[in-house]
Amino acid sequence: MIERMTAGDRRALAKLITMVESRPKEIYAIMSRVAERSRSVPRLGVTGPPGAGKSTLIDELITAWRKKGQTVGAVVVDPSSPFSGGAVLGDRIRMQRHAMDPGVFIRSLGSRGSHGGISRATMEIALLMDAFGLDQLLVETVGVGQTELDIIGIADTTVVVLVPEAGDTIQTLKAGLMEIGDIFVINKADRDGADRIAAEVRAMLELQKCEEDDWKVPVVMTVAKEGRGIAEFMEHIEAHRCFCRDSTRHAQFKRGYFQRWLVELILAELADRIKTRGPQEAAQIFEKVAVSQLNPYEGAAKILADKQLLESILIK
Amino acid sequence: MIERMTAGDRRALAKLITMVESRPKEIYAIMSRVAERSRSVPRLGVTGPPGAGKSTLIDELITAWRKKGQTVGAVVVDPSSPFSGGAVLGDRIRMQRHAMDPGVFIRSLGSRGSHGGISRATMEIALLMDAFGLDQLLVETVGVGQTELDIIGIADTTVVVLVPEAGDTIQTLKAGLMEIGDIFVINKADRDGADRIAAEVRAMLELQKCEEDDWKVPVVMTVAKEGRGIAEFMEHIEAHRCFCRDSTRHAQFKRGYFQRWLVELILAELADRIKTRGPQEAAQIFEKVAVSQLNPYEGAAKILADKQLLESILIK
Repeated sequence: MIERMTAGDRRALAKLITMVESRPKEIYAIMSRVAERSRSVPRLGVTGPPGAGKSTLIDELITAWRKKGQTVGAVVVDPSSPFSGGAVLGDRIRMQRHAMDPGVFIRSLGSRGSHGGISRATMEIALLMDAFGLDQLLVETVGVGQTELDIIGIADTTVVVLVPEAGDTIQTLKAGLMEIGDIFVINKADRDGADRIAAEVRAMLELQKCEEDDWKVPVVMTVAKEGRGIAEFMEHIEAHRCFCRDSTRHAQFKRGYFQRWLVELILAELADRIKTRGPQEAAQIFEKVAVSQLNPYEGAAKILADKQLLESILIK
Repeated sequence: MIERMTAGDRRALAKLITMVESRPKEIYAIMSRVAERSRSVPRLGVTGPPGAGKSTLIDELITAWRKKGQTVGAVVVDPSSPFSGGAVLGDRIRMQRHAMDPGVFIRSLGSRGSHGGISRATMEIALLMDAFGLDQLLVETVGVGQTELDIIGIADTTVVVLVPEAGDTIQTLKAGLMEIGDIFVINKADRDGADRIAAEVRAMLELQKCEEDDWKVPVVMTVAKEGRGIAEFMEHIEAHRCFCRDSTRHAQFKRGYFQRWLVELILAELADRIKTRGPQEAAQIFEKVAVSQLNPYEGAAKILADKQLLESILIK
């Protein structure tokens, strides 16, 4: 299957992606072999509040890359997910005109799944698309609870999309978006307030401590649905990628990325072991917690303090 | 501090909540003592897509409970969070009129934090509010990636709020909201399409396999910002709570809830151990993964296969 995928078989890619979501026993062995085939294609992350026009912007990017003859893979937020955040179905349908294009592979992710499930699935689908041989990789992220690993961790270049209407933009930026953006896009820039918000973002960027040789975060104005500003936006993407190639900070980031991934994988396996072996090996404690004879903190402390018990759950 | 909190000291409660977010070493011991003081107040969960008017509905509920002389604690999504999902600031400000009321304690949660951080923080803040002695507990949830534990797990009664405009409502429901709602609220019911969507939801509820003695999920129409439908909504909340008291299924749910919490706490500690001890005890593997000599899957498999290594990281 991996062979067929790397040979360009789209159905094999689709099947492997489905496998990532269903997580059979052999997943580590399979993904390990996929990872060997990674070409380390830089990943573009697109994030921002609902209604900022992320889908339209992504659609325009895909179109532009296709015009250059490049193939594109995208992992986007599922519009049918209960909380994808106001994604207007029309935008999504628009994006789906690429569905018939064999040079484009779009995969939607729903909001369902276990803890950390979305970030792990996103990382793995991006890796599959990378090994498959797509030229451009794009990851859309949105959502409370999706944090470092998802937004900052997966993308080599993170784009934060904002709109003039965002009344509480400054609040938004203070809450953490400011630090993660490598490029800011003010979309729907033909509307009132676009210049004001661009100025505000620039002012906030000025305030950030910035070393001499740091990346200078650009603020780009676009009207995605008319294709305006896309060319300039793409130039900035390329510039950031060039910057990353020689950046020691980006090298640091990549080191950290792989190590966090390693930790995630170990934790996922340990979670399985606790869920399956815990109720057997520590039956008494699990039962007492279930019936509130012991609170979960006491239960956890008891298990963590008992080395033999912990060993029987986690190791062997 | 715990003594002071249970004696009704609001500042002590606020400090303990802040502590939950900063997670010092003693957190397990402290929360264990807090858990002993839990009065098992039923928790109401409010969820739904952005723009459904969750904040206004919550605001009306708080007002109604206060009129009955009950105190209220609420954990809500932070409006300043980048992805809280279109929360209109005005609604939030409206809710903040309760901020001066000593019988109301509202805590906003941002989207930042580590994996599983939001669900754990929400569980713990709700527990603190419970031990503090508030009569009603309310938890708002939203967001991709927040799944079982958050929405289904924390609340004893889960309310799904929808609006007539929700064009893709049926999609939304298919994507998982249908199963989690104990009560459906069609808010902004004075708008066009309210009857149609209510009929659709009812039709979908009919399709669900339902045992004779199961809870019959009601669909309530409200216009929260005018207070319409709130009384009926509250009657359904009470009815569901009555139902839960004798329900074996709800007893099952509570058992599972405490056990999942137990697993979460153990995993959180193990995550800490892997992050701190891993790079020391398995220095070679971590380094090789960092520089891509080993992919994360190979690294994880190596660590998981080496019992001694695993023991030195997780146990002792």
